[in-house]
This record gives sequence, C-alpha cells and structure tokens, in this order.
Amino acid sequence: MAGMSSPAQPYFQRHIFFCLNERAAPQACCAGHGAQEAFAHCKKRVKELGLAGPGKVRVNKAGCLDRCQGAPVAVVYPDGVWYSYVDHEDIDEIVESHLKNGQVVERLLLPADVGR
Amino acid sequence: MAGMSSPAQPYFQRHIFFCLNERAAPQACCAGHGAQEAFAHCKKRVKELGLAGPGKVRVNKAGCLDRCQGAPVAVVYPDGVWYSYVDHEDIDEIVESHLKNGQVVERLLLPADVGR
Repeated sequence: MAGMSSPAQPYFQRHIFFCLNERAAPQACCAGHGAQEAFAHCKKRVKELGLAGPGKVRVNKAGCLDRCQGAPVAVVYPDGVWYSYVDHEDIDEIVESHLKNGQVVERLLLPADVGR
Repeated sequence: MAGMSSPAQPYFQRHIFFCLNERAAPQACCAGHGAQEAFAHCKKRVKELGLAGPGKVRVNKAGCLDRCQGAPVAVVYPDGVWYSYVDHEDIDEIVESHLKNGQVVERLLLPADVGR
C-alpha cells in the first residue's frame, strides 16, 4: 500500500487534539484561555458517553498547534477540522455533533487564515 | 458544508504528532524510548528541508497517544498512519518518504493491534 495516504480504518475514528501550550504574556496562547479545563471536560464527556477507545474517539493533549491567534484551538483528525471554542457548552457541542455524529460545528470553525 | 468530514485543503498538508508521554516504570512509555530526541530531530529536519508551515508540514508534541505497547510512536494526519521508530535514521526516512513525498514507510508501520 505504498503511497496510500489513508488506511481504510483509522485506529481512532476521530482524534481530537487540544493545544495546551503556554506562552509568556502578551503572546496569545491556549493555556491562557482555559484550554486545560476544556481538554479535561472533553475527555470526561467522551468517556461518559462511551465514545472513548480504539475504533472510536481519542481526546489528546498537544503542544503548540501554531494557530495561536485563534486561541484556544483544537483540531479533529483525520477530518482536519479546526475549532476555536470558548466554554464548556462549545465543547459539549463538538462532542455531541462532531465526535459522536460526524457533523461539523460550523459556528466554531477556525477561519482558514488564522495562524500563529 | 455541515456533515462534511474533510475540508478540501487541510491547514497542514501533513501533521505529525509525537507521543512524549512519561509513565512510571515498569509501564511502557514513549518518553522512556527517546521520543523527545526523535521529536526534536524531526522538527529540525523538516525545517532544514523547508517543509515547515501552513499548507506544508507541522511537527507536533503530543501527550499519550494510548498505543504505549508500540512505544515510541507517532501518527501522521490527516493520513491516519501510525509509526513505531527506533533511531534518527527511521525519523529521516519518515520525513523524506512520507512527510515530503507522501509515501508511507511500510517497515515502520505500527501493527493494527498494538494498543495501550
């Protein structure tokens, strides 16, 4: 299968990475915007809903995702969908809509031009 | 585009995540198998080759990827291809073959049944 870019069955159906990076003020960073709490909340909700595990969902810590101007950010793979979130309700919607049902949450999408 | 699972152009063409998690012995963990050095080497090579940046490649730190029995591991998204590597030559091959040219490195693939 050399050259194939996508295995038929990814190990995790959806793998969300939360940037938890910390930078010195006044630089934008996710850690300064509640990223750790959002990560913990997401992980808890995914477990509660029975979505966690191989073939299902993984909620992951990550270092800087290099899109700091949209902080706090998270990315869902293999979909390649990026989010900027504010509160636990946003996380709940990402979990229910995207991680559970595969429906992108339009209102939380990170604009394409948001970078570091 | 609600319901679409893959944007036409992902922000990063290939996004590799290195597990840098540390666990107390005797548990398997990536940090105990040279993951930090491999991450640093990969990041350096990607920069040297001019592959780093939006539309190109991102080399990322990650927390536990939950496939500890294959430690040290890394995953390339959006491809969803998982690797277990040993030394800098392995990293060089992943960079040249997969990150630069899109060719999966068969010999380093993590077997599908390797979990935590």
